[in-house]
Amino acid sequence: MSNYKEVKAEILAIGDELLYGQIIDTNSHWISQELDKIGVRVVRRTTVGDNRESILSAFESAEKRADIILMTGGLGPTNDDLTKPLLAEYFNCGIELVPEALEAVRTFFERRGRELTPLNRLQAHLPTKCTYIPNELGTAPGMWFYENGKVWMSMPGVPHEMKKLMTDHVIPRIKEIFPLPHIYHKVVKTVGIGESWLADLIKDWEANLPAHIKLAYLPSLGQVRLRLTAFGNTIEELEDDVEKEIEKLLPLIDKYIYGYNQETLEEAIGRLLKLKNQKVAFAESCSGGYIAHLVTTVPGSSDYFQGAIIPYHNEFKNKILGVENFVLKEYGAVSEETVIQMSENVRKIFNADFGLASSGVAGPSGGTEEKPVGTVWIACAMENRTLTKKLQLTQDRMLNIQLTAVAVLNLLRLCIEDKTE
Amino acid sequence: MSNYKEVKAEILAIGDELLYGQIIDTNSHWISQELDKIGVRVVRRTTVGDNRESILSAFESAEKRADIILMTGGLGPTNDDLTKPLLAEYFNCGIELVPEALEAVRTFFERRGRELTPLNRLQAHLPTKCTYIPNELGTAPGMWFYENGKVWMSMPGVPHEMKKLMTDHVIPRIKEIFPLPHIYHKVVKTVGIGESWLADLIKDWEANLPAHIKLAYLPSLGQVRLRLTAFGNTIEELEDDVEKEIEKLLPLIDKYIYGYNQETLEEAIGRLLKLKNQKVAFAESCSGGYIAHLVTTVPGSSDYFQGAIIPYHNEFKNKILGVENFVLKEYGAVSEETVIQMSENVRKIFNADFGLASSGVAGPSGGTEEKPVGTVWIACAMENRTLTKKLQLTQDRMLNIQLTAVAVLNLLRLCIEDKTE
Repeated sequence: MSNYKEVKAEILAIGDELLYGQIIDTNSHWISQELDKIGVRVVRRTTVGDNRESILSAFESAEKRADIILMTGGLGPTNDDLTKPLLAEYFNCGIELVPEALEAVRTFFERRGRELTPLNRLQAHLPTKCTYIPNELGTAPGMWFYENGKVWMSMPGVPHEMKKLMTDHVIPRIKEIFPLPHIYHKVVKTVGIGESWLADLIKDWEANLPAHIKLAYLPSLGQVRLRLTAFGNTIEELEDDVEKEIEKLLPLIDKYIYGYNQETLEEAIGRLLKLKNQKVAFAESCSGGYIAHLVTTVPGSSDYFQGAIIPYHNEFKNKILGVENFVLKEYGAVSEETVIQMSENVRKIFNADFGLASSGVAGPSGGTEEKPVGTVWIACAMENRTLTKKLQLTQDRMLNIQLTAVAVLNLLRLCIEDKTE
Repeated sequence: MSNYKEVKAEILAIGDELLYGQIIDTNSHWISQELDKIGVRVVRRTTVGDNRESILSAFESAEKRADIILMTGGLGPTNDDLTKPLLAEYFNCGIELVPEALEAVRTFFERRGRELTPLNRLQAHLPTKCTYIPNELGTAPGMWFYENGKVWMSMPGVPHEMKKLMTDHVIPRIKEIFPLPHIYHKVVKTVGIGESWLADLIKDWEANLPAHIKLAYLPSLGQVRLRLTAFGNTIEELEDDVEKEIEKLLPLIDKYIYGYNQETLEEAIGRLLKLKNQKVAFAESCSGGYIAHLVTTVPGSSDYFQGAIIPYHNEFKNKILGVENFVLKEYGAVSEETVIQMSENVRKIFNADFGLASSGVAGPSGGTEEKPVGTVWIACAMENRTLTKKLQLTQDRMLNIQLTAVAVLNLLRLCIEDKTE
């Protein structure tokens, strides 16, 4: 990092619909993450409306601060979209038809069996100072300017179009032009432990990290991601350095780690179950189908997900899942005894290796003094034993559903990996 | 609108973690929506890091452009949080202990059984030019400045703390200070029709809208929201004007409208079922529990949701749901015949008025020439009849799950309301 000058970027989102809160700008956040990964420092993000003065003033101040200016939006063919004419004005150049761009727009419409309108034809007219960057997924081309050592890139606001342009063109070109630090990231994904407890368990390890490796805690619902970032010489060396630190980290928090980088908890569970050729089934009461939903978002989940039953009333807990009426009456639906029978029976019904169950008071109503809102029992039934756990969650219904799902999936993970103590 | 000067606002989000993409800034979007509702025009949104020069330059340029500057973030008690000292610097005033604020922080910690640390004590020290605005949900107070006819408000970055400060204090104060236009919004929520078809159905109505009522199309997954905004005299008049236009709209698209304003499709279904005292159950194959999840996010859904069965394999479609093996073999799991039996049987099993079923190829694999990825059959069984529908969706697994859920819920809605033709 020593003899390296920081490369700075500014992100500019353009569009009235953003300022008025009609659509959420997810682009700027995504671009931030991608630039962070390659060691470009984002110094500012700005959102302006479809307004000449606002856009031009944003161009001017961005140029003063940043080496790279990445823009999204304002590229439609209608009159209220101003990015293109204003870029031409700012760079003091004309706008001309780019035959290659026209060909691309024409093909785009042909493939969809539609004819090119005069309005769409205009999208192939570009500022003469820009390099045309084809947009394979839409009709508004990317425009790349390289002036006075600074990069300007204008992209459409449609997220998947912008992402493809960034990944295929912008990031590689930035890496070519600017001397960037070598950076290696690895994210360690943990579940089942809070941030402060985790920090406490690894504080000595953290204190002894080499100076060129930084640690960030990234907490989300019931999970904490630990991001290690190494700066320095070659990528291979950095990768080695990070792996060595992770080897030291593992024994400290082994049972909380479920995966690395992009892998989600439900994907990790899929990987583990496939590896062991095991099957799972769920009996969900308070989580209302959310666990089955998470599991089935993973492609190929039919290899290990047998099915689920959501018996939202005692009658069906008895009739469909075979929970004894005696148990429901004596202990209640939200009880250890009930989730034991739910998990063991759903395991049998679906002929699965693991049967999991949830039953709780999601709220906002239904709480009692003995079982207030947020009280949840979960269970995992296996061939020889059944594990249970009581959770005391929050006052918020949606949060309780989500936290129950994380807890059930984590219990399943611990059982598959045989890491329950 | 004629003799009224537009009130302009700028939103400023402060924090390195935003610029580096570690957390998403949902605050700025939410504040945009709230300001839009009361007729304040947001002219720019800016995100800067925890950096003196960046923050001060953002203050300066915001002051030039806006009447109202709303800030979130940078208020923690640690050294890298700069908003408070920089506000004092910018307004050229000192920072002093505010006893009322200290009392609030102390109480906040006491209630949680924790002691006030010296660091937290610092949070009660505020710039002398600001008005202290208590933050009931956290420890960083709100700071309100009114200087040279402009409003500055600094709020914590934690979303629920910021929202409470905005709702309880900032919005009412802004309404008091600035002459704002009278604005009335109403959102008409439609499902089951694409934006361009909808636009075509209502084009004459749209063309004849009075000049003081504007229409916006806000499309989302399988749904389109129509937002009517009226500007003018008294709120009562505007409400009348909008209601009159909606009365004319209704006969044009009646069967696509499920509700108004914030109501979700699953909430609308809950309202309808409660009204008629009817019950529902689901048999979900390709939607994998997502429909049950949506339905059970609604508080009080146990009043009408009986339960669901998710039989992810033919074996369980037969064994648990009683779909005949003959049907599964002859027509396949993704067929009209199968969803008919699934819906009729789940209705009986759960003793419900409506039984709904989904079965399809969610993808990415599992498609055939006859039934490519995105082929989905859905059904709704009632006492006397069963309706079915074939959907041809996308290549994307998650999108197929979501669009199936919208289609099933919409089919249910049409059946409850008896609007199927």
